[in-house]
Amino acid sequence: MHAYVKQLVKMCLPSIFIVTLLTLSIPAVHGGKVLVFPQDGSHWVNMKVIIEALHSRGHSVSVVRPSASWYIKETSPHYSSITIDIPGGADEEFFRSFVSRLIQIKREGNSAWTRFSLDMELKNGFFEIHRKVCEMVIKMLENKQLMQSIRETKYDLVLTDPLNGGGVVLAHYLNVPLVFNVRWTIAGEGHFVIAPSPLSYVPIPAAELTDKMSFFQRVRNILVYVIRQYLYRQTVGPHYSALVSRYFGPEVDYFSLFQAADLWLMRVDFVFEFPRPTMPNVIYMGGFQCKPAKPLPQELEEFVQSSGVQGIIIMSLGTLIGQLPHDIADEIAAAFAQLPQKVIWRYKGERPATLGNNTLLVDWMPQNDLLGHPKTRLFVAHGGTNGIFEAIYHGVPIVGLPLVFDQPDNLSRMKVKGVAKVVDLATLDRNIFSQALQEVLNEPSYRTNMQRLSRLHRDVPMEPLDTALFWIEFVMRHKGAAHLRTESYRIPWYSSHSVDVMVFLLTVVLLILLITVALIRCLYFRMCSRQKIKHE
Amino acid sequence: MHAYVKQLVKMCLPSIFIVTLLTLSIPAVHGGKVLVFPQDGSHWVNMKVIIEALHSRGHSVSVVRPSASWYIKETSPHYSSITIDIPGGADEEFFRSFVSRLIQIKREGNSAWTRFSLDMELKNGFFEIHRKVCEMVIKMLENKQLMQSIRETKYDLVLTDPLNGGGVVLAHYLNVPLVFNVRWTIAGEGHFVIAPSPLSYVPIPAAELTDKMSFFQRVRNILVYVIRQYLYRQTVGPHYSALVSRYFGPEVDYFSLFQAADLWLMRVDFVFEFPRPTMPNVIYMGGFQCKPAKPLPQELEEFVQSSGVQGIIIMSLGTLIGQLPHDIADEIAAAFAQLPQKVIWRYKGERPATLGNNTLLVDWMPQNDLLGHPKTRLFVAHGGTNGIFEAIYHGVPIVGLPLVFDQPDNLSRMKVKGVAKVVDLATLDRNIFSQALQEVLNEPSYRTNMQRLSRLHRDVPMEPLDTALFWIEFVMRHKGAAHLRTESYRIPWYSSHSVDVMVFLLTVVLLILLITVALIRCLYFRMCSRQKIKHE
Repeated sequence: MHAYVKQLVKMCLPSIFIVTLLTLSIPAVHGGKVLVFPQDGSHWVNMKVIIEALHSRGHSVSVVRPSASWYIKETSPHYSSITIDIPGGADEEFFRSFVSRLIQIKREGNSAWTRFSLDMELKNGFFEIHRKVCEMVIKMLENKQLMQSIRETKYDLVLTDPLNGGGVVLAHYLNVPLVFNVRWTIAGEGHFVIAPSPLSYVPIPAAELTDKMSFFQRVRNILVYVIRQYLYRQTVGPHYSALVSRYFGPEVDYFSLFQAADLWLMRVDFVFEFPRPTMPNVIYMGGFQCKPAKPLPQELEEFVQSSGVQGIIIMSLGTLIGQLPHDIADEIAAAFAQLPQKVIWRYKGERPATLGNNTLLVDWMPQNDLLGHPKTRLFVAHGGTNGIFEAIYHGVPIVGLPLVFDQPDNLSRMKVKGVAKVVDLATLDRNIFSQALQEVLNEPSYRTNMQRLSRLHRDVPMEPLDTALFWIEFVMRHKGAAHLRTESYRIPWYSSHSVDVMVFLLTVVLLILLITVALIRCLYFRMCSRQKIKHE
Repeated sequence: MHAYVKQLVKMCLPSIFIVTLLTLSIPAVHGGKVLVFPQDGSHWVNMKVIIEALHSRGHSVSVVRPSASWYIKETSPHYSSITIDIPGGADEEFFRSFVSRLIQIKREGNSAWTRFSLDMELKNGFFEIHRKVCEMVIKMLENKQLMQSIRETKYDLVLTDPLNGGGVVLAHYLNVPLVFNVRWTIAGEGHFVIAPSPLSYVPIPAAELTDKMSFFQRVRNILVYVIRQYLYRQTVGPHYSALVSRYFGPEVDYFSLFQAADLWLMRVDFVFEFPRPTMPNVIYMGGFQCKPAKPLPQELEEFVQSSGVQGIIIMSLGTLIGQLPHDIADEIAAAFAQLPQKVIWRYKGERPATLGNNTLLVDWMPQNDLLGHPKTRLFVAHGGTNGIFEAIYHGVPIVGLPLVFDQPDNLSRMKVKGVAKVVDLATLDRNIFSQALQEVLNEPSYRTNMQRLSRLHRDVPMEPLDTALFWIEFVMRHKGAAHLRTESYRIPWYSSHSVDVMVFLLTVVLLILLITVALIRCLYFRMCSRQKIKHE
């Protein structure tokens, strides 16, 4: 008999905007065992939320981490660690310095060559990450004692962020079900790997296109897609293919191992992403890390309250950006100083000379609690997925300063939905920035649109995190979710797209045409020759 | 402020197979107004379940029905009627007589011509249904007083079964959100209208194919698909296109009105259907009519208990079949008579001569309560969707006697999943039928497979009916669900499949090739002519 969770979670959110009330009782699967192969860096923040929730539901979690990990601590009350000794670990430093140089280059003017060499550097950075992951996996698999103990633990599933491919190889090696916590994979956005993606209305990532494309936008969408797919297969692919070939034989295609995952828990929601085809084993959990605001520390609350009816603005450019260049910081501070609002700015480095009395610089801020504060009017953000989901959840419009990765694309989606204004760091000065701030503060549509998105996002039959937990436990209960996985991944691409059938049918039609023409010619010549005989 | 439903529904199903426990509290939208344009016949049974649930949640429902309706009663405690005076209404009679003749023809041998003329008759029967629906819609729209009163009621949404297209036209005319209760549409299975359907692993309906197809099965799948699409557009299409053209102008495509529905509540579940691509605005509610068994009437319970450890078999061939031919009934009865089980057979007509003491003939039976009885070992069924979902829900394996419509395909899916044995009525005799019964009774895999499907089907975060209600109310709360609907339906087919871009890119490549060849030829001739000059 199963023991059922008796406690009902009932959240009454009294805001008129929050129409969803959820009460949930999922049958607990006590003592499930989950092996996590995470992605280091900001992605770990997401994974940690799920790990903590799994732990609180009585499951035991083991996390595979490199000895020189960037974010993943060795000891935690929520998980045990399997630490693999890997030299290096300067990923954080690499990306920080990369972003700094990117800003500098943007400001100094965009020579195509500098941009290209920077892109190559970024590519090499990712290359290095994937190389290290593969090294880690080999070290694991070659450690007989470790693998023996892992096998004996009898894990129920491997949970992984497929931005790196380590977890996929590990799950296949151990022959246990595989669950993804995913938005990006080693081969681009998750949907493109698992679901049909008609490029006529599904914009590829980073193209800053929408689901309504002109003819030439569609041409661009297709061309860039094809080039990028080729690049993925040529660059990231070989690392993992070599690994797969070594342990599973050359006939196993790495990408099909990928597509064979049982469940794709996707950090996507269609108030954010454009609607597009999906698959039965894709479970949406976009915004699963969001939660109602907690009260602020007293000092901060006093500062916020001092803003009066004007309210506050909060600004954070995420963890990757170390120090903003002086000149940019000065321009931003000057623009803030002109406003009647109060500003809380997560900022590192020297105090800008132009800083106004209304602006509070902080090392760290309780971002979610501030976004959920009724006095918050505006969020100045770099456009990371987590921050955008928090802004949507709390209904706060955005002024975006995108830097790198998916940030420009994320913010372009928000711009199309009328909830964000985007400013280019390359051309930012106090006037441009001030105009953007004023527009979003004073034009009511930004706020009403964002609050509409918030209502839609929050009106779900089950909270995203609970949904994720339900499906992870579903995989535990049923030892996979094969009945939700299509056969597409078992079929070679030419069959999957019916190219072989088309070629066959065309050949048949051509053959019939040829035979008909030949017969007609034959008949014609016969008749001609008969007539000749008659005439003769 | 919203008033929240306070009562929590908690169902504790103590069976070890039922691992889902659901507690749900959806914010009620009191006083919603729903206009229902149903499909008459067995589909009404489904729609009624939703209407009763909507009524019990405080919504008012109006049902559009023809005066000579087959199943839909004029007065009901759950809805008010809008009756449209339409002559005829012999649909039921037509289908009953059709099925009788079909069985007769099957028994007497299958001349291709008789089969074809019967198919044509069936097509004409459907034709007539669609003609009448269109007549009904015209009568409605031309009745100014009625339309005025409908407009004044300010319906929140139109709920319709798109097997006929009346509701789609009505919703567009009234400009209110449109929700489908759907498995079949006027143009075939619902998914094929809304979602990408790669024919390499998505079998078309009625082909009795699976998601694992050989090359020639894939050829057949594609050919039949193309032919059928053509037939739909040529046969059913014109009725509605004329209607659409009359009221919305010739530039409006009927099929795109269809694809523009806000939500598709689909009577599909992937324990039944093969997994395939889907869309964000498709909500699965397969089996929403299933519920735990209630106690049987005393007499029936005594009969069931008298079966002892052997248990019982139940048989029903649905409502469409009037009387089975004598010879078939005799063979079936004789096969039943040989069994140690007791049998409850929903049967009309004369008592078969070979009937055993173990078999009880009934006019009607509480099918769901019998399927849920612990003594039930086997379900002999015609393969209608509702019956199959009930069998899955209660984990009872099937011996199928398919007749018409989707029944052969439904049962072929069950056969592939190892939970059903299918017998052809054309060749059925007591030995064949008895062997089929024995196999399913004595081979444990049928039962264990069906119980596995049952566990998977019932292990959901929210009961299918509650899910359907949640999303219907979602549409009420947000006046539609446009953010879940892709742009595909706004794009012409050649753009949607990127045919125009492909032609453009091919042209560009060809042009570049041609220019290159021309340049090379030009250069070559120049060099040749120079050499000539030199030689000269």
